[in-house]
Amino acid sequence: MRTVYVNGEYQPETTAKISIFDRGFIFADGVYEVTAVIAGKLVDFPGHMARLRRSLFEVELALPHSDEEVLEIHRQLIARNALEEGLIYLQVSRGAADRDFMYPAEDVPPTFVMFTQKKALIDNPVADRGQKIILVEDQRWHRRDIKTVQLLYPVLAKNTARRAGADDAWMVEDGCITEGCSNNAYIVTQEGTLVTRELSTEILSGITRQSVLKCADDLQIRVEERPFTVEEIRQAREAFSTSASGFVNPVVSVDGTAVGDGKPGPVAHRLREVYIRASRAMAI
Amino acid sequence: MRTVYVNGEYQPETTAKISIFDRGFIFADGVYEVTAVIAGKLVDFPGHMARLRRSLFEVELALPHSDEEVLEIHRQLIARNALEEGLIYLQVSRGAADRDFMYPAEDVPPTFVMFTQKKALIDNPVADRGQKIILVEDQRWHRRDIKTVQLLYPVLAKNTARRAGADDAWMVEDGCITEGCSNNAYIVTQEGTLVTRELSTEILSGITRQSVLKCADDLQIRVEERPFTVEEIRQAREAFSTSASGFVNPVVSVDGTAVGDGKPGPVAHRLREVYIRASRAMAI
Repeated sequence: MRTVYVNGEYQPETTAKISIFDRGFIFADGVYEVTAVIAGKLVDFPGHMARLRRSLFEVELALPHSDEEVLEIHRQLIARNALEEGLIYLQVSRGAADRDFMYPAEDVPPTFVMFTQKKALIDNPVADRGQKIILVEDQRWHRRDIKTVQLLYPVLAKNTARRAGADDAWMVEDGCITEGCSNNAYIVTQEGTLVTRELSTEILSGITRQSVLKCADDLQIRVEERPFTVEEIRQAREAFSTSASGFVNPVVSVDGTAVGDGKPGPVAHRLREVYIRASRAMAI
Repeated sequence: MRTVYVNGEYQPETTAKISIFDRGFIFADGVYEVTAVIAGKLVDFPGHMARLRRSLFEVELALPHSDEEVLEIHRQLIARNALEEGLIYLQVSRGAADRDFMYPAEDVPPTFVMFTQKKALIDNPVADRGQKIILVEDQRWHRRDIKTVQLLYPVLAKNTARRAGADDAWMVEDGCITEGCSNNAYIVTQEGTLVTRELSTEILSGITRQSVLKCADDLQIRVEERPFTVEEIRQAREAFSTSASGFVNPVVSVDGTAVGDGKPGPVAHRLREVYIRASRAMAI
């Protein structure tokens, strides 16, 4: 039985409730973060905290807690759940009030929920076998840089992918990949250049992306931040994705066609290794 | 104190809760309907029920209740809350399970929530004074025909409108109006033709829209279902919106420029009158 955090209280997961009037439930009026935990410590916490602040700002939501307080709740949850490896999920919504598109009165507090998920992140079979990907049209809204809970389309796309015998879906807009259902997307060209879409409102500013690009820089891998086409994946040497829960995961096929030689590539493998090593060292 | 409905139970609104793991809260993985009540009876119920079934189908969600059972819950809520005039809100989400983009196991029941809102719908001052509208870019996802709870952008747009001294925002895509924040949009040309965007994945298939277009037909008003431009609003004789909660509401200005003579127009007024009369007669 997990202990979760809801609005200032640590509670058993089974009794952790919110109002049916919560705007997170009614309007998807909320933002979230997911932070990895390895060896009982938080990976890339300052990055996740900074992005949370930015998401809150963009949707005009205030969270009455300092960064230190939010960090302390993360640590409490790690301790109370004896979490060695896994994820911490955090969500802030605009609170509960009678349904109205207009923001509620100033004295309505936001809803602040956090919970842990135990998960093997380092020993992940997907890292060894690689992911099969399908391509779907990107039908999401156009502020994907804000980490909101408007995730129905990725939910539908991921389930479509699994039914097709694949692991995930990558989204395509105007012939170029935007990102995966819950990860950023990369290819390595025949020349060994790492290509990933540049930051804009069209993709999430991945915290793991940021850290992995630093690792690539350390490894003196040439990086181009620009959109890449479906055709470029077919001609790529390898492909992979990054996310807080998956770290770096190779992609071995797209819509049934092998990427490169159809096996997890060495660049993805090396970046995963270096990212995990750096994360272990930097985790707090 | 309202009595609300949550998963088979009638409860006081203050204790009506859902799990923090509810997929409606975490993923916006849910759909909804809002049905008007006048004189204690449901307006356009068969239309709302049919659209709910379609939304559920499109997001692959099953609701284990017959249409008759859903109608009965509506009637129970009207009776238990002595609701004469107002709205009934209904939401179905994919239930509560540990967070995973993949659908939960088959035995996880959907969450089914309904509640009433008392509201003067017929005597609505907006119908007399008319709405001021601002235009915003339509940044929503591209399946607006599915009535999902992914409503954050309309929430932001409506609040932006109010801060600008307006009542609502109309959304613009490729130079044409799609719809309002929670309503369909119309103009009446100088020739007296009613123009409203045709049904597609880009707008919600309004139940009130459907009924009001029937009224227009009865009144022998010429109707064109096609996109209209921002420039066409400026040259229109009048403009208005329709929704389950607003019926027919005139628009008197757009981005500070008067529409027509800047007063509520006769076509909107007549359609409102006829729609309310028809609704009174047809409500169940």
